[in-house]
Amino acid sequence: MAAETTESTLIPTFTDRLTRLAELANGRGADVVLITPGPDLAYFIGHSVGSHERLTCLVVPADGRPALLVPTLERPGWANTPVEAMDIAISTWTDGQDPYAALVELLPADARVLSVDYHMPAVHALNAQAAVPGAELTLAGELIAELRMRKSAEEVAALADAGAAIDRVQRRIGQWLRAGRTENEVAADIAAAIVAEGHERPDFVIVGSAANGASPHHEASDRVIEPGDVVVIDIGGPMPSGYFSDCTRTYVVGGRPVPERVREVYEVVRRAQAAGVAAVRPGVTAESIDAASRSVIESAGFGEYFITRTGHGIGLEVHEHPYMVSGNTITLEEGMAFSVEPGIYLPGEFGVRIEDIVVVGESGPRLMNLAPTELIVLDARSTVDG
Amino acid sequence: MAAETTESTLIPTFTDRLTRLAELANGRGADVVLITPGPDLAYFIGHSVGSHERLTCLVVPADGRPALLVPTLERPGWANTPVEAMDIAISTWTDGQDPYAALVELLPADARVLSVDYHMPAVHALNAQAAVPGAELTLAGELIAELRMRKSAEEVAALADAGAAIDRVQRRIGQWLRAGRTENEVAADIAAAIVAEGHERPDFVIVGSAANGASPHHEASDRVIEPGDVVVIDIGGPMPSGYFSDCTRTYVVGGRPVPERVREVYEVVRRAQAAGVAAVRPGVTAESIDAASRSVIESAGFGEYFITRTGHGIGLEVHEHPYMVSGNTITLEEGMAFSVEPGIYLPGEFGVRIEDIVVVGESGPRLMNLAPTELIVLDARSTVDG
Repeated sequence: MAAETTESTLIPTFTDRLTRLAELANGRGADVVLITPGPDLAYFIGHSVGSHERLTCLVVPADGRPALLVPTLERPGWANTPVEAMDIAISTWTDGQDPYAALVELLPADARVLSVDYHMPAVHALNAQAAVPGAELTLAGELIAELRMRKSAEEVAALADAGAAIDRVQRRIGQWLRAGRTENEVAADIAAAIVAEGHERPDFVIVGSAANGASPHHEASDRVIEPGDVVVIDIGGPMPSGYFSDCTRTYVVGGRPVPERVREVYEVVRRAQAAGVAAVRPGVTAESIDAASRSVIESAGFGEYFITRTGHGIGLEVHEHPYMVSGNTITLEEGMAFSVEPGIYLPGEFGVRIEDIVVVGESGPRLMNLAPTELIVLDARSTVDG
Repeated sequence: MAAETTESTLIPTFTDRLTRLAELANGRGADVVLITPGPDLAYFIGHSVGSHERLTCLVVPADGRPALLVPTLERPGWANTPVEAMDIAISTWTDGQDPYAALVELLPADARVLSVDYHMPAVHALNAQAAVPGAELTLAGELIAELRMRKSAEEVAALADAGAAIDRVQRRIGQWLRAGRTENEVAADIAAAIVAEGHERPDFVIVGSAANGASPHHEASDRVIEPGDVVVIDIGGPMPSGYFSDCTRTYVVGGRPVPERVREVYEVVRRAQAAGVAAVRPGVTAESIDAASRSVIESAGFGEYFITRTGHGIGLEVHEHPYMVSGNTITLEEGMAFSVEPGIYLPGEFGVRIEDIVVVGESGPRLMNLAPTELIVLDARSTVDG
């Protein structure tokens, strides 16, 4: 996340989030929540830096004033960030000192249940535990997810911006995706466009042509695109706001008639994706979205080739709670944001996936991606110059 | 680390490393070592991928055959990697299943002490612990460091390649660093050169001009470089081999006479860095390298402005064991690799740091960086075209 300054209008938001986190910790028996650099830190204080192995840690007591521990040599990097304008004590530790002893100084005297963020490296979590006699570690991720899952109007606006930016890239795919080029060449052009259209950086650029598209997390290779190829393009990255885009479309490269099997599979996925989106509203379960998409694919006889969950939450991380997966009985609420991305993956043949980001609206889905989902057969004469 | 294929000549190396890890675990009371994606996984099986929150985990029993658990949808990405040619069982789990239950199936029946890699996210470490009644978590990082700290001839060659590549960038700094440009503009050119000179990607590009150089981990800003500025350039990244470069030089931008204070501070740092390097040989402690550099700076009266340790190990990570820091009594052995990078940081004025990567040779230091350490005053007429 880009550094917010001490003038940030988000400071009341950060303060409110910390207050709510402390309340949640209090209600769940956690004495203190510990957060190391990563998306959770960005969510709570608007700034997240930290060099590798040196401990940086936000300390949020269930009852008391939060504190931030940073390495002395990184203290200047926190100047003029929101934390300096918030009611947070900033402490430092210096190379050669024991950072975990410094951390203990910031904990409530009787803290025994230390609740750590999902991303905290084991080295920090276990060394913190070892520094507190009798300490128990729990995962704060569930508490934090309760806050992060429920997007504010500002967060939804940030996701809409991200969606519009990646839509612009999807609408330009015909400029780069054509026979005779390698997946890697196409991916490099897309990566540049992701930045040009407003992202901070590309985070993932999947160009899965022909059989490569049947591997959902294939990235890109030196395979040369051929006329008639079915190509999965799954792309996204963080915006300067810190919020991610993530959008998949599947294209057919022109120059050959489109086989009936490709049209059939594509339409099944398209109907499955539309069914998943249409099922989104407050009060239904996360797994019901998965079921809505999956039932369409199963009815069409392709159930065994839909080998992933239907979707994942999105925000300051590209994958976060809630997950649209069988067994997840969480109830969707207005403001939750996630992908709906069913697919059919035919080993040795091709894959088809269509993905939009959806926010739960007052009474139905709000789409963050508006690029068309109809089957697009790219003009064989498409050029890089467009 | 770039994917090694099943034809990799490194397979005996990987197998040997796993055998030695199991022996170390056995000797330290760990029943099993668990490793998630990151540099440790690359070190042991030559391939490290894993998508965010889905569990990928290498299971190395103290006694028994290793196993690898991967998400079903990522299984194709492991095809033709060394793990397929090694004596490692590959298992999968599918979205909607409990990955930790799948993990338990791969553990020795009586495993109670689970030793996890330093980088493992807390969510995986604590959920694995919760899945095994009575399980205790320990850090495998210390065991793994014992192996990774001692570089083979092949690893030293990879570090030498990395050093030569970043040296080529340092020798070209005069092409980009000149008055009138912003730190960010200079950093962008350097980042491109880091790739052009053979790196996989730039990992860090510090351009710390004037007072910004007094913050050791300042990156780059929109500050405009001025004639006479002292500028810290600390740059590096991973090579296709996976091994990192890391080299710092401090330059003076021409166009003004160089103040005596700048020359004095520069020479103190230069002597301190040379003293640290000269102290490197088998049998001395890590902290003695720190002391060798620090004593020069303290004797010159600048001790309070040397606010960092003297160095860090380097290999598949830019910061790893061993650390050259007070209190680290580990004995240096032939093949250990680390930075020697003392600095003087004068708040509000400027900073000076000189950094080389050094490998412990049979009887003394082997320098991986050979760019000159004399004070370089850049020609005011330097141009981007060189």
